[in-house]
Amino acid sequence: MAAPRTITILGSTGSIGTQTLDVIGRRSTEYQVRYLTCNTRVDDLVAQARVFQPYGVAIREESAWRRFQELYPDFAGPVLRGEEGLCEAAADEQNDVVLSAMVGFSGVVPTMAAIRSGHVIGLANKETLVSAGAIMTAAARAHGATLLAVDSEHSAIAQCLVGERFSDVARLIITASGGPFRSLPANEFHAITPERALRHPNWSMGSKITIDSATLMNKGFEVIEARWLFDLPSEKIDVIVHPQSIIHSMVEFVDGSVKAQMGVPSMLVPIQYALTYPVRLPLDVPSMDLAAIGSLTFEAADTERFPCLRLAYEALRTEGSAACILNAANEVAVAAFLAGDLPFTGIAEVIARTLDHMEVVAHPSLDDIVAIDGESRRRAAEYLSN
Amino acid sequence: MAAPRTITILGSTGSIGTQTLDVIGRRSTEYQVRYLTCNTRVDDLVAQARVFQPYGVAIREESAWRRFQELYPDFAGPVLRGEEGLCEAAADEQNDVVLSAMVGFSGVVPTMAAIRSGHVIGLANKETLVSAGAIMTAAARAHGATLLAVDSEHSAIAQCLVGERFSDVARLIITASGGPFRSLPANEFHAITPERALRHPNWSMGSKITIDSATLMNKGFEVIEARWLFDLPSEKIDVIVHPQSIIHSMVEFVDGSVKAQMGVPSMLVPIQYALTYPVRLPLDVPSMDLAAIGSLTFEAADTERFPCLRLAYEALRTEGSAACILNAANEVAVAAFLAGDLPFTGIAEVIARTLDHMEVVAHPSLDDIVAIDGESRRRAAEYLSN
Repeated sequence: MAAPRTITILGSTGSIGTQTLDVIGRRSTEYQVRYLTCNTRVDDLVAQARVFQPYGVAIREESAWRRFQELYPDFAGPVLRGEEGLCEAAADEQNDVVLSAMVGFSGVVPTMAAIRSGHVIGLANKETLVSAGAIMTAAARAHGATLLAVDSEHSAIAQCLVGERFSDVARLIITASGGPFRSLPANEFHAITPERALRHPNWSMGSKITIDSATLMNKGFEVIEARWLFDLPSEKIDVIVHPQSIIHSMVEFVDGSVKAQMGVPSMLVPIQYALTYPVRLPLDVPSMDLAAIGSLTFEAADTERFPCLRLAYEALRTEGSAACILNAANEVAVAAFLAGDLPFTGIAEVIARTLDHMEVVAHPSLDDIVAIDGESRRRAAEYLSN
Repeated sequence: MAAPRTITILGSTGSIGTQTLDVIGRRSTEYQVRYLTCNTRVDDLVAQARVFQPYGVAIREESAWRRFQELYPDFAGPVLRGEEGLCEAAADEQNDVVLSAMVGFSGVVPTMAAIRSGHVIGLANKETLVSAGAIMTAAARAHGATLLAVDSEHSAIAQCLVGERFSDVARLIITASGGPFRSLPANEFHAITPERALRHPNWSMGSKITIDSATLMNKGFEVIEARWLFDLPSEKIDVIVHPQSIIHSMVEFVDGSVKAQMGVPSMLVPIQYALTYPVRLPLDVPSMDLAAIGSLTFEAADTERFPCLRLAYEALRTEGSAACILNAANEVAVAAFLAGDLPFTGIAEVIARTLDHMEVVAHPSLDDIVAIDGESRRRAAEYLSN
């Protein structure tokens, strides 16, 4: 990389956003920060802006936007406001890479703005592809944007695919740690508490995604994302449980050859890869020592004990708005589980009921998706209150 | 691949040669056979020529060459003779890929002819790179030839490197099955018989290479080949023991990311990859089932019990003609072991003594290499007779 890459981070104060700035800070001459954006955490944004000196910032919430100007009156660049401001930052012509790291559905519209401007998009926002995969990928094709998922699994697959012909791919094999309940007998699942479910063996993440890992819904979402990122049908996307999380995912080719991407679990690797794709920069992470690790183990994923994975495959095969309903119902159910209002086994039940009772729209628009998302949440909440 | 690829096989009647024709026979419309060649096994060559209808043949031995014309008088194409004939076949302008699968040192000169004509060369002949790596790779660079090794390890590395920048490579990790004596206590090595050493756990190969696998010299040769194929110093080439032989080798990059190529052990995969590089064709080999395999294990290579691996690293660091001496002395020592004239532990001793007593030439020519090879064999034989 000769010239520094110009990066905009949508959601720079969240977990992936701050780790992205960590990556950038390690080799600051290689990157130029264009925009940093946040929703409400303006104190953090001010601190980031003082260190990284972005060209501009964008703040979704009105009062936070005003507060930024009070806290940092001599900030020289544009201070954009609201969703419109986020979209302007996302679409800025100077961006080489836009990292979309906003939480939840709020990321969809600004991410679409980035896609429409034809950038490389690092997607840390799962909702974008799970709920609106067909729309997002069609837009990316139309505008020549490259979508890279910023998680270890899809980054692994993208790394295995560089230099390969897409038509030579036979199958994707997504690895799953199996979560904290991999070996728990089926008859003990009803008694799982939020506290136990929040203890993930390999990754430290937010509480929503940690519960999704415990139910394997997170893996189901990754299967759906892979379907869109790599344009493959669900029959060509397998999941295998690999408790050590050293192999991050694999690609099997038509000649029987399998390529895997591996390493000590660290989000810094896929984050930096999205920023530097398709080349690499040195990164100071622990080197993988297989002799010390000794053994990598594998087992089939059990959709009896983990029905969320089966529901995700079913939603994927149903197509249309089914995955949007799946995602919305899951979010409501997980929140209820975390609040102590739903047993662990109830999560899949709420999702299955919501999927059963919502009509599936075959070719939803982005507006349809927003409406279906809302309606699915209302339905899921209804089942909960009964 | 739109047009069929034109293939010449140097040494088509050997183990790799016949497996290459097996690969070609499976998808005959994708390939055109230009020349088939052999040393003496003319009956086999006639049978191959009748099936594969090559443009021409080349036969090294005079009497075999005459016999071909008696056995197949109506063969329409050129029937070339001697090393000159092999070189003409290798250098033919119509060749897209030349597969160099001759056994031993006799492959060096025809392989050089193929390199000089600027083809893709599939190298199954280890001696070429081990003994004359500097010369061969300099010629390949000068003539724009691409060297691909036809073995599972270097093919794995080449597959991990497609689409990557060479400057992003931090380290190669070559896997070794560990051979039949991986877990044998050091004090039992002196009693190893040829019969026991010929039972390799994962691969069925010729007797010379099977003994080289049992001593780990084969892995040492692969380290030396990797040094030349991928232009990396010995410090950046590691060996790890992986008894299941599912991961065929790995590449670590500067960002801590590791790519591996995996699959059920089969020579057909690297052979076909050399023929179709850098794209792939479907190949009917068993699909890798990690859940059924269950566990992949790894351990450090033990150069105490397997000193041949250490000797190979030392020869590589010494540079010049050292690896040529190593290879020649090893060939003599292995033949003596197979004949029952040398204990297993004597193999490394003969090599070490030969290396100690031969002067190393810093920049040998191809003629020097031929002379050093001969002299090393004489010296090694001398130590044996004492």
